[in-house]
Amino acid sequence: MNEKGLRNNVISSTTNKQVKYVNALIKKSRTRREEDLFVAEGLRMCSEIPKERIRTLYISESFRKHPECAKLTQGVRHVEEVTDEVFRALSDTQTPQGILALVKQYHYLLDEVAVTAAQTGKPALLMVLERLQDPGNLGTIIRAGEGAGVTGILMDSDTADIYNPKVIRSTMGSVLRVPFVYTEDLKSDLETLKGRGIHLYAAHLKGVRSYDLEDYRGDTGFLIGNEGNGLSDEIADMADTYVRIPMAGQVESLNAAVASSVLMFEAARQRRL
Amino acid sequence: MNEKGLRNNVISSTTNKQVKYVNALIKKSRTRREEDLFVAEGLRMCSEIPKERIRTLYISESFRKHPECAKLTQGVRHVEEVTDEVFRALSDTQTPQGILALVKQYHYLLDEVAVTAAQTGKPALLMVLERLQDPGNLGTIIRAGEGAGVTGILMDSDTADIYNPKVIRSTMGSVLRVPFVYTEDLKSDLETLKGRGIHLYAAHLKGVRSYDLEDYRGDTGFLIGNEGNGLSDEIADMADTYVRIPMAGQVESLNAAVASSVLMFEAARQRRL
Repeated sequence: MNEKGLRNNVISSTTNKQVKYVNALIKKSRTRREEDLFVAEGLRMCSEIPKERIRTLYISESFRKHPECAKLTQGVRHVEEVTDEVFRALSDTQTPQGILALVKQYHYLLDEVAVTAAQTGKPALLMVLERLQDPGNLGTIIRAGEGAGVTGILMDSDTADIYNPKVIRSTMGSVLRVPFVYTEDLKSDLETLKGRGIHLYAAHLKGVRSYDLEDYRGDTGFLIGNEGNGLSDEIADMADTYVRIPMAGQVESLNAAVASSVLMFEAARQRRL
Repeated sequence: MNEKGLRNNVISSTTNKQVKYVNALIKKSRTRREEDLFVAEGLRMCSEIPKERIRTLYISESFRKHPECAKLTQGVRHVEEVTDEVFRALSDTQTPQGILALVKQYHYLLDEVAVTAAQTGKPALLMVLERLQDPGNLGTIIRAGEGAGVTGILMDSDTADIYNPKVIRSTMGSVLRVPFVYTEDLKSDLETLKGRGIHLYAAHLKGVRSYDLEDYRGDTGFLIGNEGNGLSDEIADMADTYVRIPMAGQVESLNAAVASSVLMFEAARQRRL
């Protein structure tokens, strides 16, 4: 073994510089931002990443024997093999599958996220997220959103980091396909959307009409707020229409991912009619 | 301080027998089952529990000064005050609110869970869960389910423990109100439901018709399977109708709580028409 902790080009030391680097990318959104990278783990996820976006692909010695290994590593510029022990030190998961990629971040512009029927022939279905905190909720909204035909996701800078490994995991790959953008000035961007004729709906206590009585076949955006406190007044005021999701029993509100899904799939349903 | 770790009747030692007992109830489903209790935490949750179900209510010294404290402890047979330090040792949460209850478990019969329109005038809306593993998903389904007007929840014994504190938390109190039952023989219970005229739908790859083209205004049950593997063939075969949730993009499946919510709120929508 040489001084870099390499054994026949296999990284075998958990104190290796690369192990620390990957751990920092997993844990710190600031490191991810500075390096313009995020970490994606697992066979399914890694197989969906466009090869040219992968900066480094780490595989464990055990994974080297996996039938899919050749296909997954083919065409990737930089593949690093590590011992199974080192892979466990790299990984963010309890039972690592032995494959992990450092992936170049996506950078969409508001213009790519907020495309309308006038531009593409397909009406916008935008999710606008304000101060959404839970990574699982964010990932679930992105995954369900792709399924419902969402055209883009607009988030304020207080929303959870989309590159948090928990978000990446719960998107099941949708993060690679749904355009999204973070904004420092959500209100101003919502003005832009309204200027393009995108109708903004907020599920809100002020809502009188049930959500399913509105027509979502035109350019549509749904405003979803923080899990505990909902939308801020400033952002809720930007909605063209308040709707309510009628609730039985003593339920006062729905989980943010559930409320989003109910609205998105109602829009999808109407668009199929 | 006396030998029991009591200071003016305030438990002040984290090695107190009661602390260990509560910790075991939080961590072990077997202890919960043996003691016929579960643990509920937080102001909101504790305020919704029927007083007669509370065996012990623990409050922290700080919570004693809370404006709601008198109302919450009134009529509770057994209230224990503990130091803030001891409360942190009791609690399952990062930032405990200072109130935690040991609550008697609910025991519903299949007959209470599977009530039909013929019995009550209100059509059944049953969720049937097979091998659902994630506590957050289970809790979210119960909370969304109450909101959508679900009449009961039937689970096989491989589904996550409803009294897991993570489930309790994510139900936001709905666990106190929605009837549920675990079964050792799901197939046989589904036969019973079918015998009562409850129509069983499964969101399934075999589904041809879109879920929103079915009529859910009669007695209805939705079959939901494991997060990774879906329904077993044996249980899927019990469905009267397979449906599919049409999916855009490359999404193959939805999160179990999202799929459940889309189906339940479609049923609720139809029942309002």
